[in-house]
Amino acid sequence: MNLYPKTKKGQEKFNKIIKSSIETIAKLGYSNASVGEITRNAGVSYGLFYLYFKDKDDLLEELVKKYNHEMRKYIHDSINGIEGRINIEKRGFRAFIEWVKKNTHLFKILLEAEIHRPETYKWHYRMLGDHYAKYLKDAMKKGEIKDRDPDILAYTLMGTADFLARRFILWDNDSKSDFPFNEIDSLIESIMKN
Amino acid sequence: MNLYPKTKKGQEKFNKIIKSSIETIAKLGYSNASVGEITRNAGVSYGLFYLYFKDKDDLLEELVKKYNHEMRKYIHDSINGIEGRINIEKRGFRAFIEWVKKNTHLFKILLEAEIHRPETYKWHYRMLGDHYAKYLKDAMKKGEIKDRDPDILAYTLMGTADFLARRFILWDNDSKSDFPFNEIDSLIESIMKN
Repeated sequence: MNLYPKTKKGQEKFNKIIKSSIETIAKLGYSNASVGEITRNAGVSYGLFYLYFKDKDDLLEELVKKYNHEMRKYIHDSINGIEGRINIEKRGFRAFIEWVKKNTHLFKILLEAEIHRPETYKWHYRMLGDHYAKYLKDAMKKGEIKDRDPDILAYTLMGTADFLARRFILWDNDSKSDFPFNEIDSLIESIMKN
Repeated sequence: MNLYPKTKKGQEKFNKIIKSSIETIAKLGYSNASVGEITRNAGVSYGLFYLYFKDKDDLLEELVKKYNHEMRKYIHDSINGIEGRINIEKRGFRAFIEWVKKNTHLFKILLEAEIHRPETYKWHYRMLGDHYAKYLKDAMKKGEIKDRDPDILAYTLMGTADFLARRFILWDNDSKSDFPFNEIDSLIESIMKN
């Protein structure tokens, strides 16, 4: 980013650009969503975009950081006070699915980033995976879950969450409104206990 | 596709286009790989491309079908003669990773398809997932694996394979040449047995 907004009015306009970019990219796809379209939908001047962002790729990077930050915060707040790694995992999985349901547009934009901003996409999962593996390792040391490679386990759980979000939220959002959480709880127990 | 090549010479030129398109897209990305670049690298005339394909999106669809068909055949051949679903899963997982290592360019193109040809991407995983769930259900009926929702289990295993392929082949192909198959075997047992 070029700079962060300094005034309240600046912040409001910046927020409008972010909101409009999420909606415009989710609707048209990253390649087709022009800066002109984004600023028009935001109701701000074309030039204002370039006060905050170097270009559209720079905006995409900012949106991935937003995804990373807000999703982690949501999960972090949701598992607050829960004891035991297996219980934390079950609640965390629910929180992730809730978050993707509420932020489906941002989830779609993350998928775009894999193609248009691969280093940022990789940064997102590397960062998540490294944090995740650290928590899993701690739980293994405490004997709360089965001892295995924490890195592999982290990617197994992230891959599962990611594919089930595609399957039940992106692809099938009409036919199945109830996410099969009981099945997931059972899977988490199988993977972590035994 | 417009048509399939009818003569031996036609087949050779068609193969050259396919080979060049895989290399060109993997190198430049789908958006930047032009038909001109693809035919130039293939050593065929620009117009020949349009004999076989309506446009670049049509080619991308064909490449996903190639991925789907050849990857399934490779795994199918690899598990031939193996008894018991858990043993089949372990061997099948190895086969998938072997296949992605040999066809990393095509794997990258599949990821591009999620953005540029989402219906085809979805078709690929729906088809895989439906077949997979059927085999898993059969194994549950025989008592070879724990009884649970076969659809969820299929997406769990596909998501795990997909994310570990990203992690160990796409992102980290230099530092770790040995894929942690023993860890995967143990995970498969935990998920399927208990």
